Amino acid sequence: MSSARKIIIDTDPGQDDAAAIMLALGSPEEIEVLGITTVAGNVPLTLTARNARIVCELCNRTDVKVFAGAERPVARPLITAEHVHGKTGLDGPELSEPTMPLQEQHAVDFIVETLRTEAPGAVTLCTLGPLTNIALALTKAPEIAPAVRELVLMGGGFFEGGNITPAAEFNIYVDPEAAEIVFRSGIPIVMMPLDVTHRVLTRKARVEKIRAIGSPAAVALAEMLEFFERFDIEKYGTDGGPLHDPTVIAYLLRPELFTGRDCNVEIETASALTAGMTVVDWWQVTGRKHNAKVMRHIDDEGFFDLLTDRLARI
Amino acid sequence: MSSARKIIIDTDPGQDDAAAIMLALGSPEEIEVLGITTVAGNVPLTLTARNARIVCELCNRTDVKVFAGAERPVARPLITAEHVHGKTGLDGPELSEPTMPLQEQHAVDFIVETLRTEAPGAVTLCTLGPLTNIALALTKAPEIAPAVRELVLMGGGFFEGGNITPAAEFNIYVDPEAAEIVFRSGIPIVMMPLDVTHRVLTRKARVEKIRAIGSPAAVALAEMLEFFERFDIEKYGTDGGPLHDPTVIAYLLRPELFTGRDCNVEIETASALTAGMTVVDWWQVTGRKHNAKVMRHIDDEGFFDLLTDRLARI
Amino acid sequence: MSSARKIIIDTDPGQDDAAAIMLALGSPEEIEVLGITTVAGNVPLTLTARNARIVCELCNRTDVKVFAGAERPVARPLITAEHVHGKTGLDGPELSEPTMPLQEQHAVDFIVETLRTEAPGAVTLCTLGPLTNIALALTKAPEIAPAVRELVLMGGGFFEGGNITPAAEFNIYVDPEAAEIVFRSGIPIVMMPLDVTHRVLTRKARVEKIRAIGSPAAVALAEMLEFFERFDIEKYGTDGGPLHDPTVIAYLLRPELFTGRDCNVEIETASALTAGMTVVDWWQVTGRKHNAKVMRHIDDEGFFDLLTDRLARI
Amino acid sequence: MSSARKIIIDTDPGQDDAAAIMLALGSPEEIEVLGITTVAGNVPLTLTARNARIVCELCNRTDVKVFAGAERPVARPLITAEHVHGKTGLDGPELSEPTMPLQEQHAVDFIVETLRTEAPGAVTLCTLGPLTNIALALTKAPEIAPAVRELVLMGGGFFEGGNITPAAEFNIYVDPEAAEIVFRSGIPIVMMPLDVTHRVLTRKARVEKIRAIGSPAAVALAEMLEFFERFDIEKYGTDGGPLHDPTVIAYLLRPELFTGRDCNVEIETASALTAGMTVVDWWQVTGRKHNAKVMRHIDDEGFFDLLTDRLARI
Repeated sequence: MSSARKIIIDTDPGQDDAAAIMLALGSPEEIEVLGITTVAGNVPLTLTARNARIVCELCNRTDVKVFAGAERPVARPLITAEHVHGKTGLDGPELSEPTMPLQEQHAVDFIVETLRTEAPGAVTLCTLGPLTNIALALTKAPEIAPAVRELVLMGGGFFEGGNITPAAEFNIYVDPEAAEIVFRSGIPIVMMPLDVTHRVLTRKARVEKIRAIGSPAAVALAEMLEFFERFDIEKYGTDGGPLHDPTVIAYLLRPELFTGRDCNVEIETASALTAGMTVVDWWQVTGRKHNAKVMRHIDDEGFFDLLTDRLARI
Repeated sequence: MSSARKIIIDTDPGQDDAAAIMLALGSPEEIEVLGITTVAGNVPLTLTARNARIVCELCNRTDVKVFAGAERPVARPLITAEHVHGKTGLDGPELSEPTMPLQEQHAVDFIVETLRTEAPGAVTLCTLGPLTNIALALTKAPEIAPAVRELVLMGGGFFEGGNITPAAEFNIYVDPEAAEIVFRSGIPIVMMPLDVTHRVLTRKARVEKIRAIGSPAAVALAEMLEFFERFDIEKYGTDGGPLHDPTVIAYLLRPELFTGRDCNVEIETASALTAGMTVVDWWQVTGRKHNAKVMRHIDDEGFFDLLTDRLARI
Repeated sequence: MSSARKIIIDTDPGQDDAAAIMLALGSPEEIEVLGITTVAGNVPLTLTARNARIVCELCNRTDVKVFAGAERPVARPLITAEHVHGKTGLDGPELSEPTMPLQEQHAVDFIVETLRTEAPGAVTLCTLGPLTNIALALTKAPEIAPAVRELVLMGGGFFEGGNITPAAEFNIYVDPEAAEIVFRSGIPIVMMPLDVTHRVLTRKARVEKIRAIGSPAAVALAEMLEFFERFDIEKYGTDGGPLHDPTVIAYLLRPELFTGRDCNVEIETASALTAGMTVVDWWQVTGRKHNAKVMRHIDDEGFFDLLTDRLARI
Repeated sequence: MSSARKIIIDTDPGQDDAAAIMLALGSPEEIEVLGITTVAGNVPLTLTARNARIVCELCNRTDVKVFAGAERPVARPLITAEHVHGKTGLDGPELSEPTMPLQEQHAVDFIVETLRTEAPGAVTLCTLGPLTNIALALTKAPEIAPAVRELVLMGGGFFEGGNITPAAEFNIYVDPEAAEIVFRSGIPIVMMPLDVTHRVLTRKARVEKIRAIGSPAAVALAEMLEFFERFDIEKYGTDGGPLHDPTVIAYLLRPELFTGRDCNVEIETASALTAGMTVVDWWQVTGRKHNAKVMRHIDDEGFFDLLTDRLARI
């Protein structure tokens, strides 16, 4: 496993976070999950810390270390999204409470310690929720920033607009100040916005292929996706819901599925009307410095092939 | 001409404003232009007041009353767009200075007086530039708002983003406070955003059809469009530039060319980063009250047929 | 009267506005009132236009021209202060409806026309309410700014804080965008903030001296002040209420009653929390350009002597 | 020492921070210093962590635990104040580099751990600099808030205005988002604003009394104060500089030296013009909930007697 890419997954599961974690755990030759750090977001912290462990157990990976992090955003009260994810965040299948333990260490301290311990440039951060934990780590220990290989995040949107408000995507809206800290950190960032993830729809045939794998993880995921998609199907009138978070892991495995552009991205923190908007200078009109590789297109068939293939290996 | 729809055109010509004025003046059976009011925008007020008269003279319509209005926005310094429109605003053809007079009355007073004099619901306002004149009229004489039949404006953008900044379209960016006054006025609003106008490209064959009409107005417009389109062709890599403003007049003549949706639209005035953004609640996620009919799609072939047809009648 | 200083009083009476108007009308050798323009503020426009005429009639000056101006602020909904001034704005004495006519011309047009007609540098603007009319005049006709001799305004506060909110004084709070336009106009500004006017208290003995004059104007004013002061006496626990607006006229008559300093003043328009705050750089820490003479101290005994003396001449 | 009040001093020394630390260390019967946590503020973190130890060594208290905390604010770049405090932050006397060690634990973790370990309601937080460490502790471990007995802070200003900008005091200006987190935390807060500390002047006779104590700590402090006061003496023309931070410790020892009022305090974070302003509703006009006891007056003679007395005990 020595050639596998070392990652920390920072997450607020969430059904699509579950898919992302499964995609990573199904790819052990390419990805080594050093730890999963959880954050308040789709549902409160107690549930995201629970849900991350449930997903590990579904994958028979009770060896994975799961840490609890920030209970709330850096500078705002917490907003959650039970209207999308259901009360538990993993609504859909019948699930047992996890038996594997939560690590005692705080997620922020695990992130800091790992980046200090591992070789510089060895660790990739994969973030699937609000950026609170990463921002706290960067504020507490700014010297870790240059040690990060890359930060791949699901968040934001530009030509696609927002989802929680007309202007803002949920992950960034929940903690815009944290996002601002991350986007100004100098860490190489790859951003998976709604422009990409709204092209990745859980169509019936795709979900059925996942269910047909037959493993507990795959069957549970299929049921999760059926629950999760209902909200966006009703809202957008599409034949499936967007599967946001696994695009982050897919990018590590097959970056050629994505196309994008180096851009400047600024985070709106000043205005209530547009708070959490990711202002992407796609057409390069501002002269501001590039600080992120912003993805815009995805080969969604290739993505689902990858996801199904790796789920089958769990 | 008794059945023609009475309009005031508020404008900052601008080559595409010229096309809009010509489209209106070429449709006398359907549209009666009560006056053209000018505003600072694409170029300073002295030039927009000059350019409006040049366009009237190209159409042999020296009877049209042209008024000068606000020299600068309600609450911000003026920003202009010579990088797009050239130094005069009508760069492209050789043009003579106008000889027809500018009206003595201030544009704002003409708007107020007309709405007080004409029957309630008789007058449509067609705005092609920053909304400064309209906002000043509404502030000076709020009782005119219920008398307006409809206000059709070119401005804003949502899934298309902005053009002058990543978030804002030029007309709204120049005077966001004026736009806010208009969108909160209760006047029925139809909005032609970049989402529509970026689909209306001055392709070579289309410009040639206009030039082939052979009249002074049509030839001058063809030369204007060739100048005007170069900026956006270079920026976007398209085979023609967007022809924004005539969509407003086309909507009066053939509304069936457009499709859109009743939405809430809020104007960003608080943040420097996103100032002038039109926050359109297309997916109806905010519960805020509808205050505009926002257009999204256009039959661009039908639009160019209409434009060419009416230019030929001048 | 040729040596008298020509002024326009822009006002939203208000009991203390009444005192200011009386102070001006009682000083005909030094002050020529070209007109009184009214604005929505303490009470709605209909009432301020009424009240200004009542005050003129109390002074037997039905020759003074009174104009109605803006019904509401430039970019915000109107806020009024009946909790201070009473339902009519002049609560206190029994008053008859005015019989002198309101001028037909709009206040904004009167201001513009006067500044165009009079010699450059001849006219002083005295503003006692929100700056809406002045801002509209400056936006409609920016060329009038250099013709203004001086603009003396009651508004704002710095070490005294605000009155309508912890940060903002009422006149500026009602229309911060208008204030911003005025403070950026380049017109020489003298500012009478709460720091001055809260030192000018309507103590019992002072009011009695006014009443003892015995004229209808003086007696009515004494009754107005007794009504007006109750709000601030209760709030601040002082032995009299602040008499804000006549300080503006007193400054024209006896500037030596006041001391102050040239400062930079910026108006807060971006934040809801501090909207309408006048950020006065009293200690010169910002390096920003001076744009107002900000008064801080007043000889309040000298002020009341002046006021009583001039009221007696009416 | 069992009846002594347990405190953590969070600080960015700074000469006046030094005076505060000395006042605490000179009062062992009443105050037990559990630890000193340092933060970036007056000077960068490396220097504040150094300076805190220098002060402990001057007091022969190498047993005190000193921790380094946040290198920069929660959501903004760091601003420092060498123009006031000199290059080292303790400019004035000749000082040796400290030999006592810095603790390995991060300041934020020490704060969290201490509040978890000590009895609920046992620990008082005394903050003399930007509130970054406290905000990070509250974000990382929100459950500690109810365990805090009281947080006494030097920061903000209201009728006195700001010092770093016209609207903002330095400690709050440096990290407004952190201040907002603290003021919304529900912790009982006592605030020592510039309104108090600008009344505490380092007059010559007062400094001489301190020097006359003759101990290394007292002599060094006298020399620090002579350096420190020059900036404000020049700015304000007073006969001494304000001695801000020791008021916090003096409040623990002799609260009867101070008078104030329960108020609502909001922190301005949205506007660049007024960022970091503490909007204190002293006159109770907003109806917003009280969240701090805001001090306004101090017996400055009593304060200097206390300070001199306790310095003499070191």
